[in-house]
Amino acid sequence: MRFSVYKPPQAKTGKVPVLYYLAGLTCTDETFPTKAHAQAVAAELGLMLVAPDTSPREPRIPGDSEKWDFGQGAGFYVDATQAPWSTNYRMHSYITRELPEVIAANLPALPDATGIFGHSMGGHGALTIALRNPTQYKSVSAFAPIGAPMQAPWGQKAFTNYLGPDREKWREYDASELIARKAFPAHILIDQGTADQFLADQQLLPEKFSAAAAKSGQKLTLRMQQGYDHGYYFIQTFMGDHLRHHAQILKQ
Amino acid sequence: MRFSVYKPPQAKTGKVPVLYYLAGLTCTDETFPTKAHAQAVAAELGLMLVAPDTSPREPRIPGDSEKWDFGQGAGFYVDATQAPWSTNYRMHSYITRELPEVIAANLPALPDATGIFGHSMGGHGALTIALRNPTQYKSVSAFAPIGAPMQAPWGQKAFTNYLGPDREKWREYDASELIARKAFPAHILIDQGTADQFLADQQLLPEKFSAAAAKSGQKLTLRMQQGYDHGYYFIQTFMGDHLRHHAQILKQ
Repeated sequence: MRFSVYKPPQAKTGKVPVLYYLAGLTCTDETFPTKAHAQAVAAELGLMLVAPDTSPREPRIPGDSEKWDFGQGAGFYVDATQAPWSTNYRMHSYITRELPEVIAANLPALPDATGIFGHSMGGHGALTIALRNPTQYKSVSAFAPIGAPMQAPWGQKAFTNYLGPDREKWREYDASELIARKAFPAHILIDQGTADQFLADQQLLPEKFSAAAAKSGQKLTLRMQQGYDHGYYFIQTFMGDHLRHHAQILKQ
Repeated sequence: MRFSVYKPPQAKTGKVPVLYYLAGLTCTDETFPTKAHAQAVAAELGLMLVAPDTSPREPRIPGDSEKWDFGQGAGFYVDATQAPWSTNYRMHSYITRELPEVIAANLPALPDATGIFGHSMGGHGALTIALRNPTQYKSVSAFAPIGAPMQAPWGQKAFTNYLGPDREKWREYDASELIARKAFPAHILIDQGTADQFLADQQLLPEKFSAAAAKSGQKLTLRMQQGYDHGYYFIQTFMGDHLRHHAQILKQ
């Protein structure tokens, strides 16, 4: 598994908070450092940035690259339970256990100052991972996340194939199901473009996530950004706000 | 011909300076807005950014995509004089005349506040275009430019094919030849990574450009940046410095 790391200047003289970014469908570990325009503000704030890949790349599974929204580049940040995916498509364990161990062993990471954020499929990943591991992750935010995957075509396709037909087993990977049950300790920031084609296609459903958050009393800022689409120009524009959101919490 | 434009917030209420960015070999009009991380600082400074493509894309010429350093994506910002390139590979005229007319007619560009910069082949383009048109362009800078193309394999290959075998005709497109003759009115900023493979390959030759600049008394800051390579992480890192260099001159 490949991943990208940005070390801020502050990491030369001490340990720094670590912020994980989970990318969306079809992306790789290079998408974030190339397109998200985060490094300059991270340098100011003293945040280390870690960007994993979006699925295993080896060993190959027959047909794993036939679809852009399932298989290679589309791991959905779950631990698959269905063959043949269950052997290697274990992205939840990779992000929450294997990768942090590698980071801790090799980089100057503050142990109790970890945040996570992401885009689209990666926004779903960040929200579900933070909500399931609220002591490990102190801060979470998302750009145009898949907010209620059990109710959206992308999520249903992925969960059926990775987790099997029993919908009860999907609930642990649905941000709306999780947040309705229990609030996350910190304020959550979400940005969503109003001209996002996948918003119109009912893939993202931020209104369902927002309604679920209200049930548990979650502090949530959901900003509907006029005229922005689903792409990285949208992400670049609000990247600074997200980094400051995380820094404010992680540097307390 | 496609091109990208970034309009800063200041363009909503008035005309703003325009800064052209010329990209390098294999790049397109999307490379700069995606990878160069310029928009946030341009928003602060009130600079409009224009990023043209690196060659014509239509009509196709047999074999025009066989080489990565000649033909498609490798126009070298010259007006070709040799068939079949001479019909459409006229990038110098496109950048200096056709495109500025389109910008002036459609966007809030200040008429006497134009700068130009670029990377690698585009650094060569920016330097030669500014040096040949010093009243049209008020400011110029470059990242890892091809500083003396007549003496480098990339330049020799391109000039032989676009301009023919007569080396006398190459001089008008060689930044070192031009600057030895006459200084540019404004200070020039160049950044060059010391770990750049193309520096080692003698494709860039910044020391020859620097020596030529000394002949005409050109004010030049050539910064050898330790450990940086030829890629866009290098460019991102020093983008803010370049934008401020241009803004300082263009907003006088």
